[in-house]
Amino acid sequence: MLIKFTKMHGLGNDFMVVDMISQHAHLRTEQIKKLSDRNFGIGFDQLLLVEPPGRPDVDFRYRIFNADGSEVEQCGNGARCFARYVIDNKLTTKNRIRVETCNGIIELEVTPDGRVLVDMGAPILIPAEIPFVADSPLAEYELSVASKATETQEKVIISAISMGNPHCVLLTDDIKTAPVETLGPLLESHERFPNKVNVGFMEIIHRRFVHLRVYERGVGETMACGTGACAAVVAGQLRGLLDSSVEVKLPGGNLQIEWLGEGHPVMMKGPATKVFEGQVRV
Amino acid sequence: MLIKFTKMHGLGNDFMVVDMISQHAHLRTEQIKKLSDRNFGIGFDQLLLVEPPGRPDVDFRYRIFNADGSEVEQCGNGARCFARYVIDNKLTTKNRIRVETCNGIIELEVTPDGRVLVDMGAPILIPAEIPFVADSPLAEYELSVASKATETQEKVIISAISMGNPHCVLLTDDIKTAPVETLGPLLESHERFPNKVNVGFMEIIHRRFVHLRVYERGVGETMACGTGACAAVVAGQLRGLLDSSVEVKLPGGNLQIEWLGEGHPVMMKGPATKVFEGQVRV
Repeated sequence: MLIKFTKMHGLGNDFMVVDMISQHAHLRTEQIKKLSDRNFGIGFDQLLLVEPPGRPDVDFRYRIFNADGSEVEQCGNGARCFARYVIDNKLTTKNRIRVETCNGIIELEVTPDGRVLVDMGAPILIPAEIPFVADSPLAEYELSVASKATETQEKVIISAISMGNPHCVLLTDDIKTAPVETLGPLLESHERFPNKVNVGFMEIIHRRFVHLRVYERGVGETMACGTGACAAVVAGQLRGLLDSSVEVKLPGGNLQIEWLGEGHPVMMKGPATKVFEGQVRV
Repeated sequence: MLIKFTKMHGLGNDFMVVDMISQHAHLRTEQIKKLSDRNFGIGFDQLLLVEPPGRPDVDFRYRIFNADGSEVEQCGNGARCFARYVIDNKLTTKNRIRVETCNGIIELEVTPDGRVLVDMGAPILIPAEIPFVADSPLAEYELSVASKATETQEKVIISAISMGNPHCVLLTDDIKTAPVETLGPLLESHERFPNKVNVGFMEIIHRRFVHLRVYERGVGETMACGTGACAAVVAGQLRGLLDSSVEVKLPGGNLQIEWLGEGHPVMMKGPATKVFEGQVRV
């Protein structure tokens, strides 16, 4: 059958968005893999499905599949595209929607400037829940990292935060020369992060503006990690270095992150861009 | 303006095909670059434009742009997609078409099985015209290659052929372990190929079937180099190891190559696959 889709991106993290309310298709794992291929298919990081709500208190059901066909819980850049898609395509008349994901309910709002505000939930700081091996929650921790090049142990200062996925955040004096490719993989697999970890390198320009590069767990450096931006701003605030609202410049573009402190959710605002519409036979 | 396009691939070498007969758009270099981006745009190796013929003895004009926006002369995989596009979209009722390119006129035929036959022109064997530094045309040449790893000179036996672009072809006993990544770049920049060279590694299974991997000049290993397949079959025939019609298995799929000997053109037959149709605002 022929299905209609829209290709979108959030800061370069790109998506095939399919309306499964007006269309009825079941995409098998093998089909998703084939569609995700950038030469033989459409090419995308994730497939986003817009489905009817399964309960009365939400507007839509939002499902996310990785390029390998596996279903995943969370994608901040995808959530922004989901919100723009349902509003631009007039599947709702609201500008603020409640969406059911397999990880719980999320709230999304398209703001007057077209950017999308996403409630990313409260950060998790308790070490066992991140998970991170430490006795008690601290704003920063010292880690020993074995450097293969010099065969010595190096000490690094990090913050450890979960935004649903674990993050390790380091400060750097120069974002361009930050050791993302060398220290990133060493920290990703560090023994004190039993489920591995995403590694963010943050240069603080001033209390309301930072630069960030993120080495994503299992992936490598990416253009724009939404949860990484949230974790970095939380880390900076915990260390007393940042205000509550901070603009984060990532390689793919900028995100506005706001956190009012412990117990509050992290709010992320950023762009969602339509690239083209298409029809593909599946 | 909104333009319609079709995404196609020939053995994984992928194209955005745009009908510029029914649509009138001028795409600037910057727009092509943006459209070619695989995250922020549509994503393709080349943009193919279908234009009205500029002279009475051809059916279409065929223009090719690389992802960086520069116009190029030749792409065998693209030519197959071009032929399938104009025939499938009923822009012609013929199954054999003459097409004007900036490199001359080419003939393309969609065969009953849906594959496309392309006249790739006669191979060039004269060293100065390849260009390759040698006194006279031979079926094989011995080259000295400086191995950085062992700091020694290694001798390799190659054939040198131009199919409009220069090719160096080596035989290998095992396609899987062929030194594509190490010997490829060393030969690409070898002093005896003043314009650099594409490097093919061929394992002969029998006189009518070979495996081939190609390290493309300026690019690295690719999934399916059409001119590389032609050059490899010519090289194998010149050395007396192959019949006139040979199936070439490349990482992206198979091509059928036929060459009746010196003075004759090389005929290439292979698939062209439509992936999806779309509309994009430019």
